[in-house]
Amino acid sequence: MSQKRTVFFVSDRTGITAETLGHSLLTQFAVELELVTLPFIDNAERAHLALRQIEEANRASGEKSLVFSTVIDGEVRSILRSADAVIFDFFETFIAPLEQELKMPSSHMVGRSHGMVDNTMYNVRIDAMNYALNHDDGVTTHHYSQADVILLGVSRTGKTPACIYLALQYGIFAANYPLTEEDLLHMGLPKSLEPHRHKLYGLTIRPDRLESIRSERRPNSRYASLRQCQYEIARAETLFRREKIPYSNTTSMSIEEIATTILHERKLKRRLY
Amino acid sequence: MSQKRTVFFVSDRTGITAETLGHSLLTQFAVELELVTLPFIDNAERAHLALRQIEEANRASGEKSLVFSTVIDGEVRSILRSADAVIFDFFETFIAPLEQELKMPSSHMVGRSHGMVDNTMYNVRIDAMNYALNHDDGVTTHHYSQADVILLGVSRTGKTPACIYLALQYGIFAANYPLTEEDLLHMGLPKSLEPHRHKLYGLTIRPDRLESIRSERRPNSRYASLRQCQYEIARAETLFRREKIPYSNTTSMSIEEIATTILHERKLKRRLY
Repeated sequence: MSQKRTVFFVSDRTGITAETLGHSLLTQFAVELELVTLPFIDNAERAHLALRQIEEANRASGEKSLVFSTVIDGEVRSILRSADAVIFDFFETFIAPLEQELKMPSSHMVGRSHGMVDNTMYNVRIDAMNYALNHDDGVTTHHYSQADVILLGVSRTGKTPACIYLALQYGIFAANYPLTEEDLLHMGLPKSLEPHRHKLYGLTIRPDRLESIRSERRPNSRYASLRQCQYEIARAETLFRREKIPYSNTTSMSIEEIATTILHERKLKRRLY
Repeated sequence: MSQKRTVFFVSDRTGITAETLGHSLLTQFAVELELVTLPFIDNAERAHLALRQIEEANRASGEKSLVFSTVIDGEVRSILRSADAVIFDFFETFIAPLEQELKMPSSHMVGRSHGMVDNTMYNVRIDAMNYALNHDDGVTTHHYSQADVILLGVSRTGKTPACIYLALQYGIFAANYPLTEEDLLHMGLPKSLEPHRHKLYGLTIRPDRLESIRSERRPNSRYASLRQCQYEIARAETLFRREKIPYSNTTSMSIEEIATTILHERKLKRRLY
């Protein structure tokens, strides 16, 4: 009876929407919970298996499980509803008022959200991601004319993950250029970036956090030393200010926040919604 | 008056939860809408700006806007509620029943969901993503012992985006190995993969879809020809079956679906929830 209370994320497809929904609610509570995702629950048989898992968890913890469901199919939902659990039924809650407001029935089609809606959308994401991978860390500085945005910063300020997230989530073509020691000494905008000034966005970070990130990769190196981190960041920030490049401090930001901030501040036009 | 009806995704942080929520609901309706995200609405002043945008959209379309809000702050929410719009208030809908069930008040803290919860989580995602980038397309085949899963398939079956998504969303260390013509001729498992059989997962795709994807990159090449695609896929699938490697056909799957399917089928233990 000592097991933690269980939360189930139940979905007819990937479970990502249910997890996002549930996660953002549960982070509001200081309680330890066991998290279980049950994806691809798209027929009665699987619904009954899910039901059994929920009931086992109830017994193990002695408490009603919490169930966040984004299932659309009526039969599956009614099977899930028979569980002795607290059910947050996403579609039931929101679909009816939406149908009323839009004055049309919903299609009740499964998996539109994280399913492949069309090949064009898939291609945009893949193209954007390939662009980010091929223009990572200044590997190739041509094709910058194709970029929607070019991230600038010293090593390990979050440029690569931000570029990839911008590609995946928004279909944005993001390149990144790591400021080298030479760039920092010379203190001018690197030549290859001159024609693309209006696309630049800088990333910076607190020196002690940078020290800790770099130390994981190359402990006790000059590269990871606090002194070196302080020097590089001070120079980079001076460069940003002098060249009037907008920038953010990523120290306490998640990858999503960095990407969304860039999108927002640079007023980028997303290719995906 | 001819503008489409507008949907607003309003958030005190990135807007990703609001978009996910709204998107999965709206895909159920065959209606064209104008989509606008208003992130970082975290004080009264910004709430009033949002309110003004909503009211302008109402006037432009002649219809009440739809507003999906994940805002937590009470003051901001009450300002938004004064809009003449259809408001889907995510927290209001779900937080109260959760508080009741968990017998505790919610923290009402902003941005826990896609904010940086702690550095450990950030590091896991970055490490997993770096792992994916460094073990992409068979670049380095050592360190496979660190991999949670190794994706196998011919060129352009979705291996790279799947690896990156597994890293970002689940903190999974995913490597990928592209089956070369030599591997396909020889028809045995590549030597470097032998010790890691239990980690392998195959990806395949319909030949005509592969032809179209490859043609975008290298039109009119042998590489992109339907004949070559058919040959490679037939051999790869035979290899998967002969070597008893589980595999999925990615033809009509989104990146999320590919990643989630691998997670589920390979019963991988995620490092992030």
